[in-house]
Amino acid sequence: MTDITMIRAAAERLKGHARRTPLLSSPFLDEIAGRRVFVKPECLQHTGSFKYRGGRSAVSALDDTTRAKGVLAFSSGNHAQGVALAAREFGVPAVIIMPKDAPEIKINNTRALGADVVLYDRAGGESREALGDTLQAERGLTLIRPYDEPQVIAGQGTCGLEIAEQAAELGIKDAEVLVCCGGGGLTSGIALACEADAPGFKVRPVEPDGFDDVKRSLLSGNIETNNQMSGNICDAILTPAPGHITFPILQRLVGPGIVVSEDDCLRTMAHAFERLKVIAEPGGAAALAAALFHGDELNADTVICTISGGNVDAPMFERALQLTR
Amino acid sequence: MTDITMIRAAAERLKGHARRTPLLSSPFLDEIAGRRVFVKPECLQHTGSFKYRGGRSAVSALDDTTRAKGVLAFSSGNHAQGVALAAREFGVPAVIIMPKDAPEIKINNTRALGADVVLYDRAGGESREALGDTLQAERGLTLIRPYDEPQVIAGQGTCGLEIAEQAAELGIKDAEVLVCCGGGGLTSGIALACEADAPGFKVRPVEPDGFDDVKRSLLSGNIETNNQMSGNICDAILTPAPGHITFPILQRLVGPGIVVSEDDCLRTMAHAFERLKVIAEPGGAAALAAALFHGDELNADTVICTISGGNVDAPMFERALQLTR
Repeated sequence: MTDITMIRAAAERLKGHARRTPLLSSPFLDEIAGRRVFVKPECLQHTGSFKYRGGRSAVSALDDTTRAKGVLAFSSGNHAQGVALAAREFGVPAVIIMPKDAPEIKINNTRALGADVVLYDRAGGESREALGDTLQAERGLTLIRPYDEPQVIAGQGTCGLEIAEQAAELGIKDAEVLVCCGGGGLTSGIALACEADAPGFKVRPVEPDGFDDVKRSLLSGNIETNNQMSGNICDAILTPAPGHITFPILQRLVGPGIVVSEDDCLRTMAHAFERLKVIAEPGGAAALAAALFHGDELNADTVICTISGGNVDAPMFERALQLTR
Repeated sequence: MTDITMIRAAAERLKGHARRTPLLSSPFLDEIAGRRVFVKPECLQHTGSFKYRGGRSAVSALDDTTRAKGVLAFSSGNHAQGVALAAREFGVPAVIIMPKDAPEIKINNTRALGADVVLYDRAGGESREALGDTLQAERGLTLIRPYDEPQVIAGQGTCGLEIAEQAAELGIKDAEVLVCCGGGGLTSGIALACEADAPGFKVRPVEPDGFDDVKRSLLSGNIETNNQMSGNICDAILTPAPGHITFPILQRLVGPGIVVSEDDCLRTMAHAFERLKVIAEPGGAAALAAALFHGDELNADTVICTISGGNVDAPMFERALQLTR
């Protein structure tokens, strides 16, 4: 089970590899939010999302013999690229199983990072798990799960260590930390890091409308699932349910979930463009959207928001910019 | 005259105020450029450009009595915002003389930062210098020049100290440092910093087509001027001529200038969107444009490019994104 010792060990392994993203802010955003807002732009991380942290953490934690056989991941996007880059850095094979209908740019990027991309037809009912089992058995690949994997959570937690350290430099002792939440890997990792290094911080998961499985699970005390798996522009954080490893951590450490709309996210992408000069993808904008447009659900005078990724196509970004006028 | 001691002193005064921007990179950009490319995104600096460094350096260098009377700047954009924020942080008045036809967003931002904006009609032949002289005499304001001002150059030089330090962490000993160049404040500041802390680096000024006064001045050995003052989308780096203080520094330290087209800059903005997840304004993209599209004029295996600012309106940014398809 992931704990702070594992997170610190992951930070050691990531040193000189993962980028230490800065903590950004703008008086204009503070004004909209009615409180102090800081932003941790993981869109600036290698491969354009925090996923590289978890991917590199997991790949680097394998013993040499196991790693040399290669790694395997299921992903339609950011996790694929994170694992592909990590594998390439170690010079080991990566096989990424991606849905045929994944955005072409994400498929191309994953290939360009040296991964062997295997496409499957999710509409046609092809089982990616069966495909994965075969590949594991035949080639001895190690599966790197996107969030329900202790070393992945430890890697994402390094983002929390940085938040704690950067906030301390600014003299911030109490804050709510809003995290874009899919399966809960980033959220639980940051929560564990803050528990140790910033005990005055309360982590709050932020999810898109219609995909509020974590919020509902926290309320009911059981793992709740979403009814659908698509139909929202926040593709990076659409997951069926919180993980079996992440959920107990979330239950113990985080505050109530917050739900944002697609429109909230698009508007936030435009604000991030105008005020922070960074690119947020729709799902990556969710946490900052909560700070800007759901202030009534927040308690702290200071909030720190992750921008979890920036892998968005130009037409979607233009749709967000249209909202600036 | 600005020297490394002044730059280090400015860095001390900026500590905890100016943002330490990261050094970004992408294997996809390396591939286009055919060499290793690193990017220093000063668009992530407070007010969206490196100008805050120089503004804060100059305002903080004044003695208390002088500073309390307030500061004055002429600017249509980034320098205005940098000086306005620095003055606000010290709680002293800032008067910014801006052309009536400056982009509305830049006028509004400067006002929102607490400055007293005085508009003048540059088309109508109104002299901003006469206006400035009157304000200085009446109110005892101190003029903060945008580049030909030792403490401003020292402030911009802090960006060079960071580049030298961040490059050293990556083991980079030899590189060309490409700098978006208007009047030469940032270019000369970075050149002085590199001379001291990264002697294997060679700074190269990059200018837009038709505004290559620095390139021509370096070739002729005299201060050359541009024939026009507008008519190029790289508004942030359109200046009449290198400064009397900056030019001797440039002459002593930098390599030949490089000239890029508007189209180069727009394409580079799209690449920065796609690969780095940061917003570059047209002039801010010039240095990276040189790395991507003028490789035949470069000598080093590694180049480090400034993105000097990101204050661009949505329609211009959309124009750049159109080039991605």
